[in-house]
Amino acid sequence: MTRVALLIEYSGRLFHGSQFQVGVRTVQEELEKGLTVLCRRPMKVIFSGRTDSGVHAKGQVAHFDIDDFDGDFYRFLWALNGILPDDLSAYEGAIVPHDFHARYSATERIYVYRILNRQQRSPILAANHYLVRLPLDVEAMRSAASCLLGTHDFTSFRSANADETSPLCSVQRVQMLKLDEGQLEFWIGANHFVYNMVRIIVGTLVEIGLGKRAPESLHEALSGRDRNLSGTTAPAHGLTMQMVKYPESLRLFEKSAEKCNLPI
Amino acid sequence: MTRVALLIEYSGRLFHGSQFQVGVRTVQEELEKGLTVLCRRPMKVIFSGRTDSGVHAKGQVAHFDIDDFDGDFYRFLWALNGILPDDLSAYEGAIVPHDFHARYSATERIYVYRILNRQQRSPILAANHYLVRLPLDVEAMRSAASCLLGTHDFTSFRSANADETSPLCSVQRVQMLKLDEGQLEFWIGANHFVYNMVRIIVGTLVEIGLGKRAPESLHEALSGRDRNLSGTTAPAHGLTMQMVKYPESLRLFEKSAEKCNLPI
Repeated sequence: MTRVALLIEYSGRLFHGSQFQVGVRTVQEELEKGLTVLCRRPMKVIFSGRTDSGVHAKGQVAHFDIDDFDGDFYRFLWALNGILPDDLSAYEGAIVPHDFHARYSATERIYVYRILNRQQRSPILAANHYLVRLPLDVEAMRSAASCLLGTHDFTSFRSANADETSPLCSVQRVQMLKLDEGQLEFWIGANHFVYNMVRIIVGTLVEIGLGKRAPESLHEALSGRDRNLSGTTAPAHGLTMQMVKYPESLRLFEKSAEKCNLPI
Repeated sequence: MTRVALLIEYSGRLFHGSQFQVGVRTVQEELEKGLTVLCRRPMKVIFSGRTDSGVHAKGQVAHFDIDDFDGDFYRFLWALNGILPDDLSAYEGAIVPHDFHARYSATERIYVYRILNRQQRSPILAANHYLVRLPLDVEAMRSAASCLLGTHDFTSFRSANADETSPLCSVQRVQMLKLDEGQLEFWIGANHFVYNMVRIIVGTLVEIGLGKRAPESLHEALSGRDRNLSGTTAPAHGLTMQMVKYPESLRLFEKSAEKCNLPI
């Protein structure tokens, strides 16, 4: 038996999230279906973490166990991507130790949230940018966001219908990038995220950028541990799971650092 | 009567090109339909240049004449984009002199052609990147492309079924950018392009990058003035009309330079 990890990309638009749910189309269902056809036996995968309905992934990681694998990822990925639908692709693979776990071995998850700040909509960027039509004060958003670094209780940034995992998250990186043409990217990396955390943080930052709330209110929301203190949840389609990090000793995917274009 | 210029963006996937054709969906048809509804009289537009079926535009320019325009572009664009389909948007407008002509007043057109150079397909980049699965020698492509600068006869880079415009084009800028994750951008600006010119140049450059032809062969094709000397035509969906330049004295669209993110 061999344990295999795959680096996976998908456009979230037509998926009801990553995790299997009866009766709707999910990434897990499509990936397991493809692997089951390819391996000619029922296959199950485990993801590094869930993504919501509509959220994209550039560097989602999944693992599964397989018998009689010859290690030829070139042929394996070629065949698998021939079976998978157009909005899902497995673009790199690695054989991993038997105790590797896509979710529990991960040390950091990195998300990017994309905003387009201009009056009129953009057909080219619409698929993965949240359109904010009124001008944003990016400096105010940036200065507010800096308080997220470090270990905090993110109860205020967790959806009401959240699961029971710990609200403690260690945020390892935060960056607000101002690109050309009104494009903004908010990067955040942490060991762990609570449900809807990035989208609620971004929703709050946008309210700060619009002058609807003070920059300090983000820090106040954080220390207040109350969902009522933070802002609205930003839409799913602006969010991309960009990269999952594992201990360096695993040397998981060749060139994976290069593949991720971290700005930080 | 007022002459108005619009800055237009579209995703080319579901359009049979920019120019009106009977029985198929074109950008011109949709834009004229929208303006006709908004202005309550039949409207005609003139574009800066044609784009083929499948080609995208970030900075296409169109002009038209309108009676009784109050100059309130905020309301005008808001209303127009409410009528236009999702894959077409007019995001900036300007009142221009009566002798302004979107096509004849233009001094430079700038295109970008996007390539993704990796083995497996990318759902996120598929819409506007040409996937080249074998490794490309970007340095060879870059050194070959430099011969395009200046004024040349581009007969070798014009489709057989071309119109009768002059094959002489003055190429003002050429750049091959290597971004992260196997993404390449080929930028080219010229006063004028012949039919399929960018796509034939890129097709030839890709053959050079794959080692199928020598870097010097691009220059040889250029001086040979024979379509048989150049390579295949790269697919339409990698190409975007990025920007059209007009004399600075026109001061056409506020912030339009900023909007275009020229690398050069």
